[in-house]
Amino acid sequence: MILTVTPNPALDLTWHVEALSPGATHRVPTAAARAGGKGLNVARVLHGAGHEVLALATTGGATGAEFTAELAASGVPHRLLAVRAPTRRSAAIVDDRRGETVVLNELGGPLAAEESTALHDSAVQLARDAGVVAICGSLPPGFGAEHLGELVAAIAASGVPVVADTSGPALLAAARAGAHVVKPNREELEQATGRAEPLAGARALLDLGAHLIVVSLGTEGLLVVGRSGAPVHARLPEPLHGNATGAGDAAVAAIAAALATGVDLAADTDAAARARLDLARRATAWSASAVLMPLAGELSPRHAELEAAVVATPIHEESR
Amino acid sequence: MILTVTPNPALDLTWHVEALSPGATHRVPTAAARAGGKGLNVARVLHGAGHEVLALATTGGATGAEFTAELAASGVPHRLLAVRAPTRRSAAIVDDRRGETVVLNELGGPLAAEESTALHDSAVQLARDAGVVAICGSLPPGFGAEHLGELVAAIAASGVPVVADTSGPALLAAARAGAHVVKPNREELEQATGRAEPLAGARALLDLGAHLIVVSLGTEGLLVVGRSGAPVHARLPEPLHGNATGAGDAAVAAIAAALATGVDLAADTDAAARARLDLARRATAWSASAVLMPLAGELSPRHAELEAAVVATPIHEESR
Repeated sequence: MILTVTPNPALDLTWHVEALSPGATHRVPTAAARAGGKGLNVARVLHGAGHEVLALATTGGATGAEFTAELAASGVPHRLLAVRAPTRRSAAIVDDRRGETVVLNELGGPLAAEESTALHDSAVQLARDAGVVAICGSLPPGFGAEHLGELVAAIAASGVPVVADTSGPALLAAARAGAHVVKPNREELEQATGRAEPLAGARALLDLGAHLIVVSLGTEGLLVVGRSGAPVHARLPEPLHGNATGAGDAAVAAIAAALATGVDLAADTDAAARARLDLARRATAWSASAVLMPLAGELSPRHAELEAAVVATPIHEESR
Repeated sequence: MILTVTPNPALDLTWHVEALSPGATHRVPTAAARAGGKGLNVARVLHGAGHEVLALATTGGATGAEFTAELAASGVPHRLLAVRAPTRRSAAIVDDRRGETVVLNELGGPLAAEESTALHDSAVQLARDAGVVAICGSLPPGFGAEHLGELVAAIAASGVPVVADTSGPALLAAARAGAHVVKPNREELEQATGRAEPLAGARALLDLGAHLIVVSLGTEGLLVVGRSGAPVHARLPEPLHGNATGAGDAAVAAIAAALATGVDLAADTDAAARARLDLARRATAWSASAVLMPLAGELSPRHAELEAAVVATPIHEESR
């Protein structure tokens, strides 16, 4: 079972607009309202791909009630902790003509100290039955980088690999706590490490304690950088356009699915090097497949065809 | 008591963004979530200004539950009819730097035939205790222009003046049914009547059966056009910038408040001509005061000062 942990879930609202015009009023069809947050999207992708998953999140208030009802209807197995602060909203406004999406992410209400402890304890307990744990997304006030670090360390200490997809100080804390894989995007990596060059940023996270870094590069694909072996750059020959919301989550799903096979992606072996190359291909294809779908958490049926088209190239550097 | 009727209410979400950027992700504070739709905004303005009001609307689904809870907390007296379709959402995204607002209005789910009848019957019954009825906003599927016309006619037949603020065929139906005042904006007026010139459009609505037309012109103020007397153009010397959502609703509130005094705004008397001039000033000032507020349904405390600054000019036409 793959456990996903979403400390700061959101009720995701997606509106499609023919052409978004500044300062104008638009008549739009009813928003798709879904239980969201990166960990929920990861769980949806894995559930859709036939993996056994469990999504752990918090819920509160009227938005939390809608979140809970939608998640129950989705069929994705889940465990929800009731908290006092209302579940935040996230809004995606897709401009169908330009293929651009404006996203508004609310920050989220605070977790009380006992709620923060309950989230930690639930995650650690559920991780005992998990083959992989993916901890995803931003953190709410009251569950900070230090709490994330403690959670990663506790799960890693029990021998279960952790994938962390977060940003800022939390990204550094996850690496320091020994996350097996850390998946920032290019901007998050630069912001957290201060290194403009993705390979240099990835190596900074490896030096902190992470075992493998996957850097998503948007239309330029992604990088897989381990402590040993050549880094791999994977990309599609032609970038795809669509709704980029959820593309990174699809990459995290591919990472979790790879770890669930029991392979040590970070090992200094030929098998691990091949597994990293396979992962780079699949994560790139799943990301691109998510871009083709109107809502986060779904893969286009074209993912296998796209995976065959991905160009994955080991990077042999002249110098470090 | 002033009754407002909102056939197609919405849960209004307002997000403030420092500077909205196409295709980008923005971290934003929690949305203000309010029971909205034009009639609710009108009721809020009137309630805030000390008038006795009753807001009639429908609610349904999870969004309806949030709508109901917020309305109860607001203190605005209301009567809600439970319907099957979930209450639609409306989203306003305010770009604080540019002072521009993007609005997304969901169309709304359908009213069943018996729900449509229940709305008509409730409005007619509550109108018996009302001095004025304001029927505001778009119409949901299942309560069309012909239903609006029947409702306006039934209330007007009982001697209670009706203000209608709607668009398209519904605007024409309200005028034909003898609405005392019809308040389109310039675009709605042109679209409904096919006349590009606001005075010509207003006269087309008078010819259909409305008694008085108020045309809101955005930063150019508004026009008050009756069957007799000179039309009045009112405006501020300098336009104000801010959140235009709810500006028209504030004008409707001013119209309803004027009718609630018992004056026949459409009469061919000097008193009525003065009342139309006063209305033009107040409606312009209340609209501008709404623009200064972050949320629809509120007036800036500056409204009295703005009212004193409004320039209201009778238009003496050379020819018709």
